[in-house]
Amino acid sequence: MKRLTALDLGFIYLEKRNQPFHVAYLNLLTPPADAPPDFVQKLVERLRSYAAPLPPFNQRLETRLGAAYWVDEPEFDIDQHVIHLSLPRPGRVKDLLAMVSRMHASHLDRAYPLWRTYVIEGVEGGRIATYSKVHHSVADGIAGTRLTLRSMSANPDEILPPPWAVPPQGRRERAGNILTAPVSGAAKLVSRFRGAFGSVPGVARELRQSMRESRDKHPDFVSGSSAPPSILNHSISASRRYVAQSFSLPDAKTAGKVLGGTVNDMVLAMCAYALRKYLIDLDALPDKPLIAGVPMSTRRDRSETGNQIGFMLVNLGTHLEDPLERLQTIIASVEHNKQRFIKMKAGEVVGYGATLMAPGLLNMLTNPKRGKLAFNLVISHVPGPRTPLYWMGCSVDGMYPVSVVVDGMALNISLTSLQDRIDFGVIACRRTLPQVQRVLDYLGEGLAELQALAAKAPQTA
Amino acid sequence: MKRLTALDLGFIYLEKRNQPFHVAYLNLLTPPADAPPDFVQKLVERLRSYAAPLPPFNQRLETRLGAAYWVDEPEFDIDQHVIHLSLPRPGRVKDLLAMVSRMHASHLDRAYPLWRTYVIEGVEGGRIATYSKVHHSVADGIAGTRLTLRSMSANPDEILPPPWAVPPQGRRERAGNILTAPVSGAAKLVSRFRGAFGSVPGVARELRQSMRESRDKHPDFVSGSSAPPSILNHSISASRRYVAQSFSLPDAKTAGKVLGGTVNDMVLAMCAYALRKYLIDLDALPDKPLIAGVPMSTRRDRSETGNQIGFMLVNLGTHLEDPLERLQTIIASVEHNKQRFIKMKAGEVVGYGATLMAPGLLNMLTNPKRGKLAFNLVISHVPGPRTPLYWMGCSVDGMYPVSVVVDGMALNISLTSLQDRIDFGVIACRRTLPQVQRVLDYLGEGLAELQALAAKAPQTA
Repeated sequence: MKRLTALDLGFIYLEKRNQPFHVAYLNLLTPPADAPPDFVQKLVERLRSYAAPLPPFNQRLETRLGAAYWVDEPEFDIDQHVIHLSLPRPGRVKDLLAMVSRMHASHLDRAYPLWRTYVIEGVEGGRIATYSKVHHSVADGIAGTRLTLRSMSANPDEILPPPWAVPPQGRRERAGNILTAPVSGAAKLVSRFRGAFGSVPGVARELRQSMRESRDKHPDFVSGSSAPPSILNHSISASRRYVAQSFSLPDAKTAGKVLGGTVNDMVLAMCAYALRKYLIDLDALPDKPLIAGVPMSTRRDRSETGNQIGFMLVNLGTHLEDPLERLQTIIASVEHNKQRFIKMKAGEVVGYGATLMAPGLLNMLTNPKRGKLAFNLVISHVPGPRTPLYWMGCSVDGMYPVSVVVDGMALNISLTSLQDRIDFGVIACRRTLPQVQRVLDYLGEGLAELQALAAKAPQTA
Repeated sequence: MKRLTALDLGFIYLEKRNQPFHVAYLNLLTPPADAPPDFVQKLVERLRSYAAPLPPFNQRLETRLGAAYWVDEPEFDIDQHVIHLSLPRPGRVKDLLAMVSRMHASHLDRAYPLWRTYVIEGVEGGRIATYSKVHHSVADGIAGTRLTLRSMSANPDEILPPPWAVPPQGRRERAGNILTAPVSGAAKLVSRFRGAFGSVPGVARELRQSMRESRDKHPDFVSGSSAPPSILNHSISASRRYVAQSFSLPDAKTAGKVLGGTVNDMVLAMCAYALRKYLIDLDALPDKPLIAGVPMSTRRDRSETGNQIGFMLVNLGTHLEDPLERLQTIIASVEHNKQRFIKMKAGEVVGYGATLMAPGLLNMLTNPKRGKLAFNLVISHVPGPRTPLYWMGCSVDGMYPVSVVVDGMALNISLTSLQDRIDFGVIACRRTLPQVQRVLDYLGEGLAELQALAAKAPQTA
């Protein structure tokens, strides 16, 4: 039994009827060629055989005398956590995404450990999928990615334990700070957050400073230094639209090489193109550029501990029609951020966590004018290994993040770059943002635009 | 645009994270013998072709200046309301019930009209199922049953519109009273409920009187005149366990004829046996008899309007080992209730609605001692036609109600008697009440016990 940290408790308190606070992965898998007809049945049985999870997957939330604790569940019930589903024929990916949209809109039951894995058979092309969700108070996106990857192998024949049975080494490592210490109640939680943001060198001050400098150095940063109001920043319903697709990592890499940008720059440019076109369709493109909040791992090695997570505000140049100008704006904005990168060594989790959990709070703290936004959406990119991966004997064809949207932040674009793919997962409020599937098409067009730009660029070799 | 009635608003306010307030039907169907492989696909397409629902199915909840209204949804999106699912092979009924348990635990999104129908293919034996849920503020169980039945036909070849496209004749008819008039806010709602229960002849007074008389006339009604505390009356988690099964209506009828009871008496005796045995298994059988709250339709004709819904408290005699004594206790209790039946002419919905929505309130009002219960669970029986029914060309093999459980009322037994079947749907909090599937087995044993009693009884003919 242990008390929740301030950060974890924050994820619990901020959860609302229209705003569940879990993160997930949708993994697309191809079973081995010689898989028997009952392959999925056996796979589910195998997963359920890991019926004694390790912490935190065996712990549930309990409130005693007003304080929240994680307590071990003595009667852990694996059937509550591993679910076997099937798509109706023909099992189009579109139907899979609709299913994931519904599942992601559904709350986890706080009377049980806060995670669930669905194995979904019947995806067209003989494929299967998993959708694995975990409450944000149990694992953040980075930890979730790491755990997911640790259950995969480069060897098709190697069967590793599922995430909930992975030994705790390297799990939930967080630098100790004011937010990761236990806290006992809502009032204390709020004061602790205030303390964290008010501390020197505080995140808020860093972000404010960053924005002031941006305003001075980048003429594209229009006056007010705030993100423009947009349809992306309306309040949300409880329903979701989730779409996902893979794009070619080598294509992005090649274009970036010619155009003088990283893969991440190319990803941001793809997003900028897609958002611009999507909002033009809706006649809702702001005159000022959209600003993306981009959590970035600054991990330089392969270690699983000691991540450094930064957070930058990127001018997406969505007001610019010329693709080269737009790309240059993005690259300049990223470069500027990098030079004075907010490392948040002590409070590394703060920026990332606060971004996802309380954009309103962060916005308020980073911008003096009430009602103005510091950023319009979060674009999150988690890089992974470049080798092919296998899970339970299946090849991993896609590993798409499913993130969180909140009131005032109705769209989230998250992606992993793995093997030779960039796996995009786009989640939105179904009601606020119509036809989000178009964003996928436009991401593809955005990549094609970058390739065309690269083809026209003067050859350096 | 119209304001919500007090009753409907009550269903909205009482909804909590662990306590969604929708009711549903699980229907088990056999497609025609000559159904093509894409039969279910076509059926779903046909359902989705009814894309312009009639009120109230085209209305969503909207709050303006603190008051709640039903407003027409101009951009009604049928894809949000008709969902196509499939069970993994072999599609056991057990897996179907687990799926329904999960779906029933999930809230409807208040940003959309508050109903959803799932068509589930792949049930073993070539069958399919539908699970149709509607928020209790939109339709109560009786109205839901009536609408469901009106979309079915005695003619296998007749295709009728689905419930949301059934013309409004006979829908949501409710005698005008203090609870069915519009109301504007929470404070007024509470005072109106107080008024309704305090009115003369008020429901609460009637129930109190009923219990006083019961205490005098039935020695089995132990002192305190309250239902005993039991595991059925603990608080609940957000997870459900739903189980359902059909039993033979002729068997129950035949036994009842010999034993001097109605089908409803037999049903209550089956429940009494099942609850007794289930609680003995858990070493949790109270010494005092469990009391069932039984909403009863007093409709005497086939009309769809002018229902009269009564509510009685039945001593289930669960403390009695002897089956005949137990049955006699039940029959005497029902008879006693009938003689002074609480008809609630003006406030007919009050008893039924309040039972489902606020057992705590009703308990409090009917029993002066704080913390005591007037009843331990609701057992609800809705009779239907005796002819075979068809829906979209499929024969209806089962029509199982899926009702509501609330904090303090962790089990609900609902049933329909249709054609030659009694279709039981038992829903419980998954965490509070373990292994609820046993209740089904024990219902069957309970029926067998009644048949054995009847076989031993002196022949009257």
